[in-house]
Amino acid sequence: MDGPIAGTGAHGDHPFYPLGVQVPGYVANSMSAAVLVLIFAVGCGVIFLPTYLVASRARPALPTCELLATFWFVLCGCIHLFFEGYFSYNHLDMASKMDLFGQLWKEYSLSDSRYMTQDPFVVCMETVTAVFWGPLSFACAYLIMTEHPLRHPLQLIVSLGQLYGDVLYYAICWFNELVYGIAYSRPERFYYWMYYVLCNAFWIVIPLMLMYQSVGETAAVFAKVKKAASGKKTI
Amino acid sequence: MDGPIAGTGAHGDHPFYPLGVQVPGYVANSMSAAVLVLIFAVGCGVIFLPTYLVASRARPALPTCELLATFWFVLCGCIHLFFEGYFSYNHLDMASKMDLFGQLWKEYSLSDSRYMTQDPFVVCMETVTAVFWGPLSFACAYLIMTEHPLRHPLQLIVSLGQLYGDVLYYAICWFNELVYGIAYSRPERFYYWMYYVLCNAFWIVIPLMLMYQSVGETAAVFAKVKKAASGKKTI
Repeated sequence: MDGPIAGTGAHGDHPFYPLGVQVPGYVANSMSAAVLVLIFAVGCGVIFLPTYLVASRARPALPTCELLATFWFVLCGCIHLFFEGYFSYNHLDMASKMDLFGQLWKEYSLSDSRYMTQDPFVVCMETVTAVFWGPLSFACAYLIMTEHPLRHPLQLIVSLGQLYGDVLYYAICWFNELVYGIAYSRPERFYYWMYYVLCNAFWIVIPLMLMYQSVGETAAVFAKVKKAASGKKTI
Repeated sequence: MDGPIAGTGAHGDHPFYPLGVQVPGYVANSMSAAVLVLIFAVGCGVIFLPTYLVASRARPALPTCELLATFWFVLCGCIHLFFEGYFSYNHLDMASKMDLFGQLWKEYSLSDSRYMTQDPFVVCMETVTAVFWGPLSFACAYLIMTEHPLRHPLQLIVSLGQLYGDVLYYAICWFNELVYGIAYSRPERFYYWMYYVLCNAFWIVIPLMLMYQSVGETAAVFAKVKKAASGKKTI
């Protein structure tokens, strides 16, 4: 790996695509891809232990699916608030960052250079994600552990927010490729499929499942209360 | 007004900003701004009559606030599905359109030229709006009229979808102006404040109010059922 010497921003000085994209101030990572991915994965895993300890004390009879939802929201809270918040805060100068999060974002950007180029959509969407879905994800975890009546409306809000942001994130990228022939990922399949497609697919599949759960549970209690109010049944 | 002769797309051939933006195939509107705005306002108003007739027959004791919510969702359904759906379907060739919706979009685009330039975010956001929030807005109106248990979860989904799309719509525009100095509105204050700010502000304020209502109502029924289940009260 090169040392921390800033490039001119022209292609050849940096590894990002499409060809010709300007990334001023780029400094090559000092950590390898394998080490960065490993640190990120271990970091995500480590979050589960304190979450488990707090959740099992707060609500000892927590069903497994509820424990998994709590894990998910704590993980989302950490990623949105700290990792995506880091990007939002530093979006004007991401290419020169050499701390752990800076190097992680540079590694991820091999699959999507918009994180290195102050792309307006990516910056705005990530800022909304960090400012709103980050803290609200922690709130969701708390509401699950306390069986709070606000849990399902908030779960629905956070999950739809994540889903819609992610749908636009994919859609705008594909639109640019189809209509303008601009691809933001390096041509190696690994980056596109493992970083860009796989990493973001979690925020399509899991929010959809949680929305399905929240809509179902909410409709069920409204139906229950309506039935009780109509005098047919006392719950 | 000029006749329907397509221009070269260069500035001077069209009235859109920023200076230098290319709008190939532009044909000047044949209807004046006042006529277009009047037709749009009357069109929106006309929707209320059949909605009122259907709603007052389906649920005669519909409270005023529920009637207003029904009006809102039917209006949203029409605008999202037909007007924004028209843009989504014709986004590659908006500047030459001379039918009513085409001329209305050209008039609106004086405040935001992204509708004339196949802007990736605008096309993707409008497509999601037309495909999902359009039909689901009609569904919301139906669910209100039938007091259906799915009403509040769906109202929350549609309202957050509208709100988030609109927040990104404003935010990306302001980001482009602040960071890159690109303004998509004509310099006259009227276009910016009356078309761009005012017309879109409805989809900030009203969805926020409806979300507040849905979150409150949902939390209330969950609290009611929880209280009943704990044996303190029978509802």
